Amino acid sequence: VLRASTSIIAALTGGASAIVPVADVEEARRRAHAVPGDVLVAGERHGERIPGCDLGNSPLEFTTARVAGRTILLTTSNGTRALLAARRAAAIGIAALANAGAAARWADDEGRDVTIVCAGERGRVSLEDQVCAGVLVDRLVALAGPADLGDAAAEAAVLARTYGKDISRLAIDSQWARRLQRAGHAQDVAWCLAIDTTSLVPVYLAGVDKVVSGPR
Amino acid sequence: VLRASTSIIAALTGGASAIVPVADVEEARRRAHAVPGDVLVAGERHGERIPGCDLGNSPLEFTTARVAGRTILLTTSNGTRALLAARRAAAIGIAALANAGAAARWADDEGRDVTIVCAGERGRVSLEDQVCAGVLVDRLVALAGPADLGDAAAEAAVLARTYGKDISRLAIDSQWARRLQRAGHAQDVAWCLAIDTTSLVPVYLAGVDKVVSGPR
Repeated sequence: VLRASTSIIAALTGGASAIVPVADVEEARRRAHAVPGDVLVAGERHGERIPGCDLGNSPLEFTTARVAGRTILLTTSNGTRALLAARRAAAIGIAALANAGAAARWADDEGRDVTIVCAGERGRVSLEDQVCAGVLVDRLVALAGPADLGDAAAEAAVLARTYGKDISRLAIDSQWARRLQRAGHAQDVAWCLAIDTTSLVPVYLAGVDKVVSGPR
Repeated sequence: VLRASTSIIAALTGGASAIVPVADVEEARRRAHAVPGDVLVAGERHGERIPGCDLGNSPLEFTTARVAGRTILLTTSNGTRALLAARRAAAIGIAALANAGAAARWADDEGRDVTIVCAGERGRVSLEDQVCAGVLVDRLVALAGPADLGDAAAEAAVLARTYGKDISRLAIDSQWARRLQRAGHAQDVAWCLAIDTTSLVPVYLAGVDKVVSGPR
């Protein structure tokens, strides 16, 4: 949620032709030459743009003026790692609060068992990712009927119902949100915590190694 | 919570002189000869007593008649593994719902930073362990004042406040609770989900490799 998935949604909304998740900036630079057309490298570590990259990891940077028609090679601390770890799934959609309702419908339309992968923060849970997972659980149950929920899914749903009453409380209760705000990214945090602002669901096509806008 | 920590509390309440956590039943049998006095071997896998062990992992088995004055070598699927993983901590107390308030006071009296280790179920989270962790977080904050909570601690506290209104809901919402009830252990589940029934806090003395009753 804070911020890679939301940035990917923003980039595709802004008209980027595709996002290619890569492990690090060296891989991004190596592969930039092999990608046809206009290419941008977006890189983030510890919440900040990697020096020398065209873009960082703020969804507000991915404007139409910057990204329309371009391919973006993206590396972030946690988000792109989670995406690469999910490569073997039958279908991979990217969710954040921004597209939670649409992402749940996409997953329901897929008609498969659903695993929700939370990127978190360096191997630890992030409150905002858990809450978003819980929103997805609740929306999926509403669409598909009662499900056999694991304990982690049941817990996430409880969190979602608690924070659903006032999602902006995540800006106070999440450690990472607090850190981003202290580092001058308060506008990003506010943007990323807005729920159901778009019906766009990015889909990671692992076979061709890129993220594109899924069916609307 | 379900059930090793609760069984350890029950065993010491029943008058057992010490519990020795061991990795498996082979280690228990090997070490039984080296322990002075009366020794019992308690072993559980997949919710059931390991054949040939004196006791399983039901807190109701650890009666005074069975355990008073005896040392118990204990191996369980998840609980004893978590205990062995925590060996290097400066002080190790064992908490369950049964002694949550007392365990929080013990930890507060220790005057150190607190890490709450949830045993869970084969590497996955267990709802009842998360809720118990959240009860400990809330009680510790009440005793020690505002704390710098990690996101996992903040989440656990939210779960505890939700389930605190009706802790018996865990018997329905926890996968492991449901499985234990189906396997005929409903009385164990009810026993383990009772909160603040004792002031006894087992303390794991890793240096001498045994769990004894801590200061009351």
